[in-house]
Amino acid sequence: MNSQAAVSVKRIADSTVRRLSAYLRFLEDFEGRGLMTISSEELAKRGGTTSAQVRKDLSFFGSFGKRGLGYSVPELAGRLREILGLGREWKIVIVGAGKIGAALAQYRGFRQRGFSILAAYDNNPEKIGRKLEDIPVRDIDQLERDIEREKPDIAVLTVPAEEAQSVVNRVVSVGVKAILNFAPTQLHAPADVTVKTVNMAMELEGLSFALTNRE
Amino acid sequence: MNSQAAVSVKRIADSTVRRLSAYLRFLEDFEGRGLMTISSEELAKRGGTTSAQVRKDLSFFGSFGKRGLGYSVPELAGRLREILGLGREWKIVIVGAGKIGAALAQYRGFRQRGFSILAAYDNNPEKIGRKLEDIPVRDIDQLERDIEREKPDIAVLTVPAEEAQSVVNRVVSVGVKAILNFAPTQLHAPADVTVKTVNMAMELEGLSFALTNRE
Repeated sequence: MNSQAAVSVKRIADSTVRRLSAYLRFLEDFEGRGLMTISSEELAKRGGTTSAQVRKDLSFFGSFGKRGLGYSVPELAGRLREILGLGREWKIVIVGAGKIGAALAQYRGFRQRGFSILAAYDNNPEKIGRKLEDIPVRDIDQLERDIEREKPDIAVLTVPAEEAQSVVNRVVSVGVKAILNFAPTQLHAPADVTVKTVNMAMELEGLSFALTNRE
Repeated sequence: MNSQAAVSVKRIADSTVRRLSAYLRFLEDFEGRGLMTISSEELAKRGGTTSAQVRKDLSFFGSFGKRGLGYSVPELAGRLREILGLGREWKIVIVGAGKIGAALAQYRGFRQRGFSILAAYDNNPEKIGRKLEDIPVRDIDQLERDIEREKPDIAVLTVPAEEAQSVVNRVVSVGVKAILNFAPTQLHAPADVTVKTVNMAMELEGLSFALTNRE
């Protein structure tokens, strides 16, 4: 099952991956409450989707559950952690030690999930040498050198929009393959680099859309 | 065309709304560069999707563009702003004046889009009475009273996970219909209230998934 999964995942939509993350959260909540099995209907209800969607999402990765018995909570949770790549530590650098960088540095949910922040980088001499929580703020001039040595997996960009593309180019040049971008701009990267943009204004637009189009 | 749109939008998926937000950003970029028309292919290329998807997304809201001529950039941009509810001011309150609240308060993208932050709320006496950028931090005890008077459209929750549901209950009790939640927890709200959760760990999981499943 595991080896088959890798064949098809390139075609898995972003929205599917988001739902898998959500299912894992529900399963962990069920685990915490000592529940051993769960139906696709229950997962669907928690996730605001349909049981057909749940079964379809999970079917991408092999066969889970027994007809009429539902899914084993620990087994499905374990498998989802594996699919999502959460069985190991991922090393992260934050580029930009401003307010968003500081908010991320203190975010407890990262370490719980195996995401470990190595350092933050900034070009402001007043910030360099200080700490964000317990994370050192380093001079951005040493970004490439540090990445080559420490090999972080993910770069989180919290720099101003006009600086973001140049930072992408710099981290990609030394082998970073995954970028989480908070700058409100469209970024370009080679096809083998995954870039995810978190756009706060876009999240609010989802709400203004909903408010505008309710009857 | 406008009046027809309202009929169908309840069925529009979240992912479609996100793409509409993205198209609007590309169109505004084109507008800034003085371009007057754009093809669905060009929009698709910028958005990392297909031209069939672009046409389908836009078709929900009436007919745009002329076969072979593409879309009028100002017309489509204007129509997308209207669809997304961006033609007016939306009033926001932030509940939780911690680091994420502070990061949001300084986020310039909001005001540009018509999102105006009225106030932030906290229960920490050291924060109450101060400002986050130019936004007053008020005592959370006056949350309901202020909401009844000032009628914000959107509540942004940046409180700890264990406090989030109680804040939802409080803002919903005084008429708030849209919530942007940054607390890493599942929230329950009445069906006529739209809740969007921004989960930072989930964004990183999208990247760990991509890193794990690349060949």
